[in-house]
Amino acid sequence: MKVAISGKGGVGKTTIAAALTKIFAQSGGTVYAIDADPDACLAAAIGIPEDEALKIKPVVEMRDVIRNKSGSGAFYTLNPKVDDFLDDYSYKLGNIRFLRMGDPKKGGSDCYCRENTFLNALITSLLLDQQDTVILDMGAGIEHLSRGTARGVDMMLVVVEPSRNSLNTAKHVQRMAGDLGIARIGIIANKIRSDKEKEFLLQSFPDNAILGFVKFSESIWANAMKSSSAAELEGELLVEMQKVCLKISGEVGGYK
Amino acid sequence: MKVAISGKGGVGKTTIAAALTKIFAQSGGTVYAIDADPDACLAAAIGIPEDEALKIKPVVEMRDVIRNKSGSGAFYTLNPKVDDFLDDYSYKLGNIRFLRMGDPKKGGSDCYCRENTFLNALITSLLLDQQDTVILDMGAGIEHLSRGTARGVDMMLVVVEPSRNSLNTAKHVQRMAGDLGIARIGIIANKIRSDKEKEFLLQSFPDNAILGFVKFSESIWANAMKSSSAAELEGELLVEMQKVCLKISGEVGGYK
Repeated sequence: MKVAISGKGGVGKTTIAAALTKIFAQSGGTVYAIDADPDACLAAAIGIPEDEALKIKPVVEMRDVIRNKSGSGAFYTLNPKVDDFLDDYSYKLGNIRFLRMGDPKKGGSDCYCRENTFLNALITSLLLDQQDTVILDMGAGIEHLSRGTARGVDMMLVVVEPSRNSLNTAKHVQRMAGDLGIARIGIIANKIRSDKEKEFLLQSFPDNAILGFVKFSESIWANAMKSSSAAELEGELLVEMQKVCLKISGEVGGYK
Repeated sequence: MKVAISGKGGVGKTTIAAALTKIFAQSGGTVYAIDADPDACLAAAIGIPEDEALKIKPVVEMRDVIRNKSGSGAFYTLNPKVDDFLDDYSYKLGNIRFLRMGDPKKGGSDCYCRENTFLNALITSLLLDQQDTVILDMGAGIEHLSRGTARGVDMMLVVVEPSRNSLNTAKHVQRMAGDLGIARIGIIANKIRSDKEKEFLLQSFPDNAILGFVKFSESIWANAMKSSSAAELEGELLVEMQKVCLKISGEVGGYK
């Protein structure tokens, strides 16, 4: 199954994406963890050392390799072959395969339209075994939705924190994910520090729309200053996110 | 003078942008506060009611109007006239004139390249009196820099919080702002909760690079759930940001 994680900047998308990646990886299948944000930090969050992460070639570079091999043929005619290329562009960590969309660029040089278009083609073309999972950590905000980068995922997760602004973003995400034909949308409430905050979020969505409530974590905050920011997945975050994974797989399938 | 605010998602760019807007507005000149993020919330932060904010026409729509008036002429030939158009696309609040870049779009319909290109042309063409100021609240992350949206500002401010990830973003911003020829770059440290966090940030930048340290504010967090999230500018945030404004104007000029 293929799942994208979205939401306003700073709500904790990468923390949630890393937790989902680790938990689904424990179920045995391959998990493709894809950082779709040019301002990336998913690699560190799943435990890839910084110097190793810098060596990973961004998948957008695959485009020209495939074009050269296929002549001018359309990318999608090569779908069954895309796995042949992935080894060169992914970092293996147990049964996690990490990929990243693109590199930082020179100021004033270019947008990331090409990267987003190629990533969408790649996601669409990934043929998964029943147990395999794709977790996409999207960029902050809504442009990835207007671009349609995650079109073709089975579920769009929206991370919210107890703020009006993050709810406004979530509303845009829900609408735009609907435009993209993404049938399933789930909310994950993050950084909850009181019952009042939980109640505020509960009242903002229909019953059962929120798949899980993750408490604000002092240890994640304290850990954020370290050079590798891969906080251990443990305690309440682990327990709550395991429940979330079961709900996701109950809706979409693929998790045992 | 023209100042852009950038940084990782969630570090508090909009809070800082709103504070700068209000403080510079007190000095008497016109302050153009421009929300350059399609996932926008600067309007609420400076105190524009939500229903009023929805009525403000995005500046990208000005493009076609100008084209129609100028035939096929290039935008920059009309520079001295751009003020004539601004009334229709801005919301006045005292001597603040608020503008926003673009509207949310349909999922899968388009990128925001057109909006960014036009906004850059608009910023460049704004002719300011000595006391006038432009404050640009940029989108999260680094794509606005690879696009060069804020090319032409006098100073790039980078908001950081005490996390490794926000420092990594700041490094990219500094490099890319340099690529764009932006001569002055200042750091604002936000959400500081301890001396240890302050020390961590001090050690991460050269002496005097950090223009101000803003403490984590429980009241901003609590206020974030309200429907209008225009926190009063008061207390330590006000005092610290007044110092920041003086430093900015000391470097760039224009604030009395």
